[in-house]
Amino acid sequence: MLRQHHILLSGGSDSTTLVAWVQHHHPGDEVSAVTFLYGQKHAVELEAARAVAAHYGVRHREVELPRIEGSALTDVDSPLPEDGTSRKEGEVAPTYVPARNLLFIASLASLADAVGPGTLWLGVHQDDRTGYPDCSPGFVEAAGEAVRQGTEYGLDVQAPFVTWPKSEILRWGCEHQAPYHLTHSCYKGLRPACGVCDTCRTRREAFAAVGVEDPVPYADGV
Amino acid sequence: MLRQHHILLSGGSDSTTLVAWVQHHHPGDEVSAVTFLYGQKHAVELEAARAVAAHYGVRHREVELPRIEGSALTDVDSPLPEDGTSRKEGEVAPTYVPARNLLFIASLASLADAVGPGTLWLGVHQDDRTGYPDCSPGFVEAAGEAVRQGTEYGLDVQAPFVTWPKSEILRWGCEHQAPYHLTHSCYKGLRPACGVCDTCRTRREAFAAVGVEDPVPYADGV
Repeated sequence: MLRQHHILLSGGSDSTTLVAWVQHHHPGDEVSAVTFLYGQKHAVELEAARAVAAHYGVRHREVELPRIEGSALTDVDSPLPEDGTSRKEGEVAPTYVPARNLLFIASLASLADAVGPGTLWLGVHQDDRTGYPDCSPGFVEAAGEAVRQGTEYGLDVQAPFVTWPKSEILRWGCEHQAPYHLTHSCYKGLRPACGVCDTCRTRREAFAAVGVEDPVPYADGV
Repeated sequence: MLRQHHILLSGGSDSTTLVAWVQHHHPGDEVSAVTFLYGQKHAVELEAARAVAAHYGVRHREVELPRIEGSALTDVDSPLPEDGTSRKEGEVAPTYVPARNLLFIASLASLADAVGPGTLWLGVHQDDRTGYPDCSPGFVEAAGEAVRQGTEYGLDVQAPFVTWPKSEILRWGCEHQAPYHLTHSCYKGLRPACGVCDTCRTRREAFAAVGVEDPVPYADGV
């Protein structure tokens, strides 16, 4: 049976690069992408995910999960941090979403295991380790082991960027024509992007480190 | 902060015993139970779960997940096995639900991690190991590690019956007045229970091994 590739595609720059990565390393294989809705304020990222999947010609599924509580990304009453100081070593960020990555991995495993042998791909990276317990190499390894042991087809979990800084991801993506103009990152769900929320800041810093202009417009016009 | 106990309660005999077990071993602690709907044919078990939670006076939540495909428990076109031969060593049972236990654990972790420190409780047992990859001690351990590493509060996963045969669970439950008359097991969702589906057979055999009459009525009246 053909081994299939299942990608967690948020519509942001990391998971978009991941689609390019999987197609680059597994040419001709069957690749599909899944975007999960979980009550995020920036559900506009779904449109970006659709555009990215269409760009690469991969099958795209959208799955609505129950709303995840307890995060500034989902709670209307919790403001999104804007001052760039929300992620501190040893502390969990207000934008951490409780057990989100495990829930994504489990949901993707469920879809994939109903089909046949396959690999699940996850775009977590080193810069997300501070503030997000579910982006660490230890977590990815344990979750991978749980998926391998707990599924009919012994599914595999891969997170090739887990030890890369975000700038390295963007550098690789730029070298491989990743369509960053189609992506969405802003946690506020704004287009043009706000430029000051945590993910806008991280993204802009990474593009600056690469020395490439971010093709996505920002509200401050910089 | 008070450590909370979160129990996966299906409304069947094993998870009902688990509620008794947690209250017995952690008297006075805060205990809550969650039942997940995932398109199962026997969604009638939800009513049993409500009754069991009310019996023990624990908080009960019901969460609807997307329908899980690829199982005789959820696919209308896949018949439920009735001949008692569906579970064979080294094979996955037709009633296996793709990655269900990982999805349940992840969903429960998400609810629990939004609240504070806590333990997740799972009623898997030894007799479910054949045919169900997500009921093995190895899976439970790996999933527990993923939850511990991937959550803000380093949540704990406990499955005290994972090495027990079902009859031992029922024996312990009978000794501790578990309300088995309120429970539901039949995969067909029938009341009286069909008596011949896989879970009806397993349940009756286990009650017979304990030497106690199953208080739930069966269609064949035996």
